[in-house]
Amino acid sequence: MPGAIEQVQGGSITTPRGFSAGATAAGIKTHGDEKLDLGLLYSDRPCSWAGTFTTNKVKSPSVVYDQNIPADAAIRGVVVTAGIANACVGAQGLTDAKEMADLAADHMGVDRGSVLVGSTGVIGVELPMALIRASIPTIGLADDGGLDLSKSIMTTDTHHKYAAVQFSVGSSTVSIGGIAKGVGMIHPNMATMLCFLGTDAAVAQPLLQKMLSGAVDDSLNMLSVDGDTSTNDMAVILANGASDAPAIVEGSPEAETFQAALNELCVELTKQLAADGEGATHLIEVQVEGAGSVQDARAAAKTVVSSSLVKSAVHGADPNWGRILAALGRSGADVDEEKVALYINDVCIMEGGVPIPFHKEAVVSLMRRDQVTFRIGMGLGTASATAWGCDLTEAYVVINSAYTT
Amino acid sequence: MPGAIEQVQGGSITTPRGFSAGATAAGIKTHGDEKLDLGLLYSDRPCSWAGTFTTNKVKSPSVVYDQNIPADAAIRGVVVTAGIANACVGAQGLTDAKEMADLAADHMGVDRGSVLVGSTGVIGVELPMALIRASIPTIGLADDGGLDLSKSIMTTDTHHKYAAVQFSVGSSTVSIGGIAKGVGMIHPNMATMLCFLGTDAAVAQPLLQKMLSGAVDDSLNMLSVDGDTSTNDMAVILANGASDAPAIVEGSPEAETFQAALNELCVELTKQLAADGEGATHLIEVQVEGAGSVQDARAAAKTVVSSSLVKSAVHGADPNWGRILAALGRSGADVDEEKVALYINDVCIMEGGVPIPFHKEAVVSLMRRDQVTFRIGMGLGTASATAWGCDLTEAYVVINSAYTT
Repeated sequence: MPGAIEQVQGGSITTPRGFSAGATAAGIKTHGDEKLDLGLLYSDRPCSWAGTFTTNKVKSPSVVYDQNIPADAAIRGVVVTAGIANACVGAQGLTDAKEMADLAADHMGVDRGSVLVGSTGVIGVELPMALIRASIPTIGLADDGGLDLSKSIMTTDTHHKYAAVQFSVGSSTVSIGGIAKGVGMIHPNMATMLCFLGTDAAVAQPLLQKMLSGAVDDSLNMLSVDGDTSTNDMAVILANGASDAPAIVEGSPEAETFQAALNELCVELTKQLAADGEGATHLIEVQVEGAGSVQDARAAAKTVVSSSLVKSAVHGADPNWGRILAALGRSGADVDEEKVALYINDVCIMEGGVPIPFHKEAVVSLMRRDQVTFRIGMGLGTASATAWGCDLTEAYVVINSAYTT
Repeated sequence: MPGAIEQVQGGSITTPRGFSAGATAAGIKTHGDEKLDLGLLYSDRPCSWAGTFTTNKVKSPSVVYDQNIPADAAIRGVVVTAGIANACVGAQGLTDAKEMADLAADHMGVDRGSVLVGSTGVIGVELPMALIRASIPTIGLADDGGLDLSKSIMTTDTHHKYAAVQFSVGSSTVSIGGIAKGVGMIHPNMATMLCFLGTDAAVAQPLLQKMLSGAVDDSLNMLSVDGDTSTNDMAVILANGASDAPAIVEGSPEAETFQAALNELCVELTKQLAADGEGATHLIEVQVEGAGSVQDARAAAKTVVSSSLVKSAVHGADPNWGRILAALGRSGADVDEEKVALYINDVCIMEGGVPIPFHKEAVVSLMRRDQVTFRIGMGLGTASATAWGCDLTEAYVVINSAYTT
């Protein structure tokens, strides 16, 4: 039984002690209202770190740079650019990632090699290093700089994403905070988009990696906006131990609480990402219960939430539940049609594989809510999973039909 | 070297000798301009038959009914309904499929059990059997009825799809003709949508199945409109031997020509389906060359053509080629970024993994054409594959946000 976990109102990655952050408008972004596009995260002491990265075989050198950093390295911060992905630019990409990391390390007065790099934006364009060289030294770091940092990583996001949670370890309070950005090319597979997390708990490798991977599997990896896995996905956590709580060790009640808090934080950021999917007007949550295995439950939930037809139906508040069954059937999960039950926002639409008469107008009005939940009972076992996504709208097409022109 | 193959102008499934067809407006369809919704195909003599069917685990009983017919059965015709899919309706679905097949057999004066069934339309609604019982006996069969039949299977299709090819076997002419319908819930996996093919060649099982499966793998299975695999997909071929050509046997030059002709026909129907994808304004063709294996080539081509971001970029004539690389990287195919070459309508955009400077306006104007072709050189081997799809438009969302309401 994990201990009590509280959400921190307005919290972000600088909520945990010892972290500060800042950002500037370097001129990398050419789209969008938000001009901050170059950000720094700093920890006043060395951090253990863990990360999950895109499985796309075409990877940004910014991802490759981080993956080459040893798991036992002591990390002091992160530098992030938005507007240009630093992907598909040949050998120059890794050169630029390293220079950016070194510039950030020098500015923050920490060892070169102790700063992670993240990038997001248009693929196939080189980073404007002259702008970045001129701008990094101008970035000030503030204890409440997490919100600026969360703004600086936005691309087509309409608002910034941030959250933090707290729980007690003995008489100490431990915080985990995070920021994330979406909101297109999102169909994570082992990791997703940019998500930076920090905690003032002391958690060593490999436990930190294990807990991050566990949280990501149940949150960011269960998110789909448009079926496309990015070249730049990463979720990274830094643990600096700045709280006075004793180190969290594997198998302890504190580890259980930390895992629960980290999951809650990642789910919260995931829902923020889903609700702000490109062009989205509804958050879709798909809960699969009674599946034969967790793998099946995840496949089923993620396939349904990814279906263009299901997403379009939600956009039009059309209870066209046959599309949910069709998606379920192609998900790869074991499905016995005669055992399937389906609920739309808790109204039973189908049971035992056949439709139940329902008052269409009532369901349509439920589907007009900001969040639409589909609960699917598979009737085959005890495994469950939840996935998040958003509706498919005309605005998605408009946004993505002229992204570089 | 296959013999010469000619397209038959205006040809369809009734181009091969011995086939006739007809359709009526039974009142099953409630959407769309085309009211024909119940069709029959008839062969004046017994046919060998082969089929490929949806791999969706949620299957229409109309599919299940056909799959239960023995491979060596002598088939005399097909009955098809459009407007209602006869899927997710419980046990009644199989009862209705069988009754419909029997009604059609009785009307055409052939043995019960010798008529295949196809259905397409809304999932979760029972077939209106009273209408079907009243209407089947009114359907007249005509030697040029293939075009009416092709109209009667339309759902959101904006026009009917038909084609035929001919080639010589000795002094005889052999024809293969077909009709097909799309145009949403299309992401075939071992079969696709409704596609009915007929030939007056004599081709016995299992060769007919082998040749159909081969053709489908290179055509209908390489088509994606929206990533959703239907519950009702089927591609079926009937061979009635009504031409005076000798039977086609495995390993003969005639078999090679038949396979090439069947492939050409299926590719033609596939392109018609792709071009008429829901809301589509462009046909997209993705040619992958130099892949390490055919499996990789197919995965790469199909992933790129299925990407919502690539599809949206084509809609906006935006040469945002980074999205093609991102899709390639998540396709599961082996990719060595440094060896990738990319051509948009024969203009080289990328070589050796880095962008080549191009005149954007020139490429944008190429992308405004009705067909946009992406050619991708993987630089890893000799395998190739082609996939077809369409752009993602606001109209797709509009069509699918209010399909049942």
